[in-house]
Amino acid sequence: MFKTDPYRVYMYDTDAAGVVHHSQYIRYLEAGRIEYLRWLGIPYLTFQEQGIGFVPTTLTIQYRKPLRQDDAYCVTVAVESYKRASFTLRQTIVCNDVCCVMATVTLACVTEPDFTPIRLPERLLQVLATSSKTVI
Amino acid sequence: MFKTDPYRVYMYDTDAAGVVHHSQYIRYLEAGRIEYLRWLGIPYLTFQEQGIGFVPTTLTIQYRKPLRQDDAYCVTVAVESYKRASFTLRQTIVCNDVCCVMATVTLACVTEPDFTPIRLPERLLQVLATSSKTVI
Amino acid sequence: MFKTDPYRVYMYDTDAAGVVHHSQYIRYLEAGRIEYLRWLGIPYLTFQEQGIGFVPTTLTIQYRKPLRQDDAYCVTVAVESYKRASFTLRQTIVCNDVCCVMATVTLACVTEPDFTPIRLPERLLQVLATSSKTVI
Amino acid sequence: MFKTDPYRVYMYDTDAAGVVHHSQYIRYLEAGRIEYLRWLGIPYLTFQEQGIGFVPTTLTIQYRKPLRQDDAYCVTVAVESYKRASFTLRQTIVCNDVCCVMATVTLACVTEPDFTPIRLPERLLQVLATSSKTVI
Repeated sequence: MFKTDPYRVYMYDTDAAGVVHHSQYIRYLEAGRIEYLRWLGIPYLTFQEQGIGFVPTTLTIQYRKPLRQDDAYCVTVAVESYKRASFTLRQTIVCNDVCCVMATVTLACVTEPDFTPIRLPERLLQVLATSSKTVI
Repeated sequence: MFKTDPYRVYMYDTDAAGVVHHSQYIRYLEAGRIEYLRWLGIPYLTFQEQGIGFVPTTLTIQYRKPLRQDDAYCVTVAVESYKRASFTLRQTIVCNDVCCVMATVTLACVTEPDFTPIRLPERLLQVLATSSKTVI
Repeated sequence: MFKTDPYRVYMYDTDAAGVVHHSQYIRYLEAGRIEYLRWLGIPYLTFQEQGIGFVPTTLTIQYRKPLRQDDAYCVTVAVESYKRASFTLRQTIVCNDVCCVMATVTLACVTEPDFTPIRLPERLLQVLATSSKTVI
Repeated sequence: MFKTDPYRVYMYDTDAAGVVHHSQYIRYLEAGRIEYLRWLGIPYLTFQEQGIGFVPTTLTIQYRKPLRQDDAYCVTVAVESYKRASFTLRQTIVCNDVCCVMATVTLACVTEPDFTPIRLPERLLQVLATSSKTVI
């Protein structure tokens, strides 16, 4: 399982209830995925430069414990499964060893900017094959 | 089913892939819920002024068709079910009669700012009882 | 002077200080400019479809009174001045007849996505000439 | 002059023009100020816990060179001047040794959540006195 370096919660992430707004965690999760691909040696930008993107098709998120200003958190990423044209990741947001957010995200491989579904790139498939627990 | 007046997609909602960033739809959905409560005659602010908030605990979102700059969209809200201290809404984001996003959101009733779970307020329960299809 | 229809402040616009985060007003101002161009009959999208964008080069904003959740506000736009390749707008954000935010924004005309400065399109120049008070 | 550790630009910071949206830099600048206060030994949170906040009253920002996805940038902070109840900082956003954004921000000291102006806390005054170039 991959874990990012810690990020800090800033004022602009919070809302009037005094905690991180629930939409912000979706952004934290994206940052985690970007860093995961970089760590795997296949940075997202190299796909995008070829007109290939990975776009969320389904996302399920469970909010367990709200983060607050100045909290330091890490994002984890693990491969759940993959298919020909999409893959599914399990992610968490962890702060002080407490799992504050859990999510499952399915990403489809598409051409950009027209968003036509295509097969996963070979380089990504190889990585997913060695990282995933379940192959559907 | 409740449907908001149309909103416009602005540049700041989009990302470098040329479409609305997937985190923004979470905000659109929140706006829809706020307008739904206002339409029901129980504005969210009246709860918050009493130290009561409704916070998402689980959210599942399906991205079907991306919105782009200048698109006009509406948000729909329908009650799925409710329990003593939480309720679940089904929501969509619709543009040109096409359902672009579907979501199911469960909201817990909490005190703010300490986030202790409490029972749903009586006024809300009455509304949910007449609006929901399923009571768990 | 142009004035938008009212917009509503939602939870996601606010921060832990209980008011709209100061970065959000920059987005409100952009929405005002987009609606201004639409009202002038020259929607921003028609420029973008030709690979032309108007990008802020300098922005000065004065925060006078914070907006809060559920406030309804309008954005105003007036032409301050224009040059061959840029123009300057004066904008305000108004809530309950109180001017809460004042801003001056200079926008340069550029090609997208490479951001090369170009002359203002003729259609825009004509509009600015009739709308502006000062021509530099 | 203080300089933050590098931050990364993520997809959610960008807009359909392929660059960081101009409102996001306002957030980057805030992060820089928060880290500056932490570095000075007077974290922002310690003020907030006493009901004291520093809120922008005027902000001038010059956009020189757009940042793009995956860019790594740092934020700098220097004291410009201070008065009894406010202080002014000069900030930049730097990427690959190029100054991409310059800003001047005046912050007023207020009580939260009612936003009444108050004098700067003594601890902050001491720091500003040793850091600033100009005292008004």
